[in-house]
Amino acid sequence: MICPIVIDWGTTSFRAYRLSDQGKVLEKRASANGILAVKDGQFAAMLLDQIGDWLANDTTAPVLMSGMIGSRQGWQEIDYVTGKPGLSEIATGMARVSLADGRAVWIAPGYSCRNADGQIDVMRGEETQILGASAGRDGDQIYCLPGTHSKWVSVTGQRITGFTTFMTGEVFDVLCRYSILGKLMTEEGRSEEEAQRWFDDGVQKAKAGMPLLSGFFGVRARALFSEIPEAHTKDYLSGLLIGSEIRDAFKDKDRLVTLIGSGHLIGLYGRVIENFGGTVELSDENLAAAGLYQLACHLEGQGQFCE
Amino acid sequence: MICPIVIDWGTTSFRAYRLSDQGKVLEKRASANGILAVKDGQFAAMLLDQIGDWLANDTTAPVLMSGMIGSRQGWQEIDYVTGKPGLSEIATGMARVSLADGRAVWIAPGYSCRNADGQIDVMRGEETQILGASAGRDGDQIYCLPGTHSKWVSVTGQRITGFTTFMTGEVFDVLCRYSILGKLMTEEGRSEEEAQRWFDDGVQKAKAGMPLLSGFFGVRARALFSEIPEAHTKDYLSGLLIGSEIRDAFKDKDRLVTLIGSGHLIGLYGRVIENFGGTVELSDENLAAAGLYQLACHLEGQGQFCE
Repeated sequence: MICPIVIDWGTTSFRAYRLSDQGKVLEKRASANGILAVKDGQFAAMLLDQIGDWLANDTTAPVLMSGMIGSRQGWQEIDYVTGKPGLSEIATGMARVSLADGRAVWIAPGYSCRNADGQIDVMRGEETQILGASAGRDGDQIYCLPGTHSKWVSVTGQRITGFTTFMTGEVFDVLCRYSILGKLMTEEGRSEEEAQRWFDDGVQKAKAGMPLLSGFFGVRARALFSEIPEAHTKDYLSGLLIGSEIRDAFKDKDRLVTLIGSGHLIGLYGRVIENFGGTVELSDENLAAAGLYQLACHLEGQGQFCE
Repeated sequence: MICPIVIDWGTTSFRAYRLSDQGKVLEKRASANGILAVKDGQFAAMLLDQIGDWLANDTTAPVLMSGMIGSRQGWQEIDYVTGKPGLSEIATGMARVSLADGRAVWIAPGYSCRNADGQIDVMRGEETQILGASAGRDGDQIYCLPGTHSKWVSVTGQRITGFTTFMTGEVFDVLCRYSILGKLMTEEGRSEEEAQRWFDDGVQKAKAGMPLLSGFFGVRARALFSEIPEAHTKDYLSGLLIGSEIRDAFKDKDRLVTLIGSGHLIGLYGRVIENFGGTVELSDENLAAAGLYQLACHLEGQGQFCE
């Protein structure tokens, strides 16, 4: 059986995993060498720089990648799969690039669909994480991947049926950094306990239907009148934004949502989903590795690594 | 009768008017010396620099100002009036500062209220423009003042009954400049005719209820698939934002809306309000001057300039 080397190569991060033939993580290596850090299309050189020793030590290990490495700004642009893809369709959508010695490297496709608003939407990398997360599960599932561009993904069995992206994290970031709201924000006098209270207050406003564009201005107006301490304007804005996303994304309010990711943001999203009446479970780590392992097994089963 | 000198002194602009005793504009002087251009609180010096000759030529003319000059960052912070103020309440809210020679300069207050969402909201300068715009009018009126922070103001007779601010212009600006959407935007190949079409397309999405946070990401996804030409992503985003504002602000869709302002933006707002079923009229120019003239007459009638 195969022991694949798999890589989750995103915009700002590179995460490589050496897997056992059962898909267990034997070794993990992570760096900030995302595709933005690669100059002049030198992706092969960067790969050797990061895990050249792994490749040399096991010259027959299949190498698979997913993430923004398959985008126009990556190693090679791989077409998005469409429809309601499962393991087989995503595996079929993979494309090969070659190292200087002729060794093949497989890159997963992205996935695109018309989202809940009838609008074209795209993901790259999340489709592979979803394969990892939904392995062995039955029935309808909802996944939420919070972040710069949060995604809400519907899955049936191990088949993605649709998703919608929300630019929540990026809007928060540009407003804090570059808008008039940022001028109010200070860390001085901020407390964790109060932070939660003001975050919840923002969520409550969103839940009550506050439009975002007037809600944003309200951050300033309320701070002017000391209705929000300046140290907590950021928490309030965060609640308003995440609350708005979840209000619009989470239609069946009594459902279980599987959160994919890690860190502080997962805690905030879990809090809001529960506030809206949902229940939450956290996914395992290394989902990209788990999904790429399944893709490797599928390609192996088709004899793709024997050429 | 008095021939007042009135000044609309905002964040980034200074506009002074020498008025006749009937309120006619005899002379107008405008510069980019808004309050941000004034260093170390030297507002009196800047005023003399801008209109020292007017002040010297008519030493008894009352001098009145409105706008951000009455804010914490301005000459002196003047308390907001509240409730449902008309001419008398706004005049009563004015405060005086003095020039070195003891001459009084009157500054209009801002206005604050709880807006349609129950949120505290603030304006500074618009209350005076509304006095100018609503002079001699009866019954319920709606005013829209598009801009960085657009305002929708309800008026009955000459009395302001409430308003809501939308951060539309500023959100557009920070997204174009600093978000991933800005990277797509180009002027190359842009045509005015197509611009209108894509603007309308964005409006249509907002009208259909598209959430802003997913709509923003859609600008990128649709451009990736060439569903929107990159040269028109900015027009589409503008339509999505202005459409969202008007969807949320303009509740009684068959009403007459008086647009206050000038330039390209007024045309866009008029187009959208009509798209939503409203009718539009444009206000006169120099509304701040007209409002300040009324305040001057009111104070004159009280004998405030005789001390």
